[in-house]
Amino acid sequence: MASARDLILANRLADAAGSIIRPMFRGDWSHERKADASPVTEVDKAVEAAMRAILESEAPDDGIIGEEYGPRNEGASRQWVLDPIDGTISFMAGRPIFGTLISLIQDGWPVLGIIDQPVARERWAGRIGQDTTFNDKPVRVRSCKSLSDATIASSGPQYFSDEDAGAFMSLAAQTSKIVVWGGDCYNYGLLAGGHLDIVCESGLKLHDYAALVPIVEGAGGLMADWQGNPLDADSAKAQGGRVLALGEPARLEDVLEAMG
Amino acid sequence: MASARDLILANRLADAAGSIIRPMFRGDWSHERKADASPVTEVDKAVEAAMRAILESEAPDDGIIGEEYGPRNEGASRQWVLDPIDGTISFMAGRPIFGTLISLIQDGWPVLGIIDQPVARERWAGRIGQDTTFNDKPVRVRSCKSLSDATIASSGPQYFSDEDAGAFMSLAAQTSKIVVWGGDCYNYGLLAGGHLDIVCESGLKLHDYAALVPIVEGAGGLMADWQGNPLDADSAKAQGGRVLALGEPARLEDVLEAMG
Repeated sequence: MASARDLILANRLADAAGSIIRPMFRGDWSHERKADASPVTEVDKAVEAAMRAILESEAPDDGIIGEEYGPRNEGASRQWVLDPIDGTISFMAGRPIFGTLISLIQDGWPVLGIIDQPVARERWAGRIGQDTTFNDKPVRVRSCKSLSDATIASSGPQYFSDEDAGAFMSLAAQTSKIVVWGGDCYNYGLLAGGHLDIVCESGLKLHDYAALVPIVEGAGGLMADWQGNPLDADSAKAQGGRVLALGEPARLEDVLEAMG
Repeated sequence: MASARDLILANRLADAAGSIIRPMFRGDWSHERKADASPVTEVDKAVEAAMRAILESEAPDDGIIGEEYGPRNEGASRQWVLDPIDGTISFMAGRPIFGTLISLIQDGWPVLGIIDQPVARERWAGRIGQDTTFNDKPVRVRSCKSLSDATIASSGPQYFSDEDAGAFMSLAAQTSKIVVWGGDCYNYGLLAGGHLDIVCESGLKLHDYAALVPIVEGAGGLMADWQGNPLDADSAKAQGGRVLALGEPARLEDVLEAMG
């Protein structure tokens, strides 16, 4: 489990990340392409390095799994999972809907998560067994009585394989057809706050979803893979990073059925 | 042409809009569907009504073309074009990347435009013959030496017909493949500020694009339909609302060629 002290440390990591990101927003920075052709800026790297330095000093026995640098203490039961800028494309384009993701996983299960939007100074924090907060105030998902009332979000059609795009389109066609595109982690914060009903994505890595699970579930929602199984550290590999978030857990069967 | 007095009036409209929108952001409001199935909230309607009341008092001889209510003074050579919330879906989902659009068109040509993001308190303003400003400071597009360097944005795949989607995909495939989804008018402000290179959309109405033209062009960019023609009040009907914005006007031929 995650302790109050773990949450304090996670908040300190988010503060450090925000201090680096804010002055670089809409600023000058270089970028390059990773092996999968996705862009990474020098800001992503600087932010992860700053967070790692704090963890190495404050939690030297814990492991670190970061998006930009290699693993540390791979065998540790407690692993900090870091995505310095989730939504690098939004960051690069000057849109304040990216986020720093910080998670603690215990024996492969996410037990603590933070989504931090440093420009708008918005922070969602979740810890297993505790209410999720948005800027330190509790937030809740909204109810959704029928799939046909649901607003659905996804980061972009380019992240789906043809097969996964088909499943998404089948699902979207049975919702309200109010489809929100773009947004990455930010959409999951909005879902936790009761502003969206479904987020459906594929190809996510552990660092993309680990922080989201305690936030969505601590707000009363549900996260699962596309078979309805809970998400753990292996879901990215075992299930192709296919991730569902629901504000209304009772809609899970409808969603799975709609996806075929 | 638009006078300094017109710009003061347009800013007053944007102030009035923001005062109504801000307290309703992530709040409680009802929504309904329009004839084209797109959602409209009571906030959209209240904002347009407030702007119209100011115009009817301060510019009684000018016409008004609004998204939500019928035309006023249809024969007038000066027409105020209003979109109270462009990006209603983002507004409904609690994303601060929608905007109030205010434009003045003279004999069918856009001569003044404002994009106002009231939550983040961001305002782009353009007037023919003047530098575009962002929160009262001049902004410029960035240069783009090759299509393969370009970042491209569009509000969502669902707004394209199959034919238009094909043209967009052909274009996107020749860019950097950094594709920004979602964002509506906000993307054009980002382009004017040098954070994006191309926005490509179709199905836009006059109230969606009229305000964007003076902003993009006053920052050094170019707006056109998909044949490369300048945009006027008839472009929505004549060209299916197919709109291009380029930060680097010299890339127009490359873009048109890539779209086939």
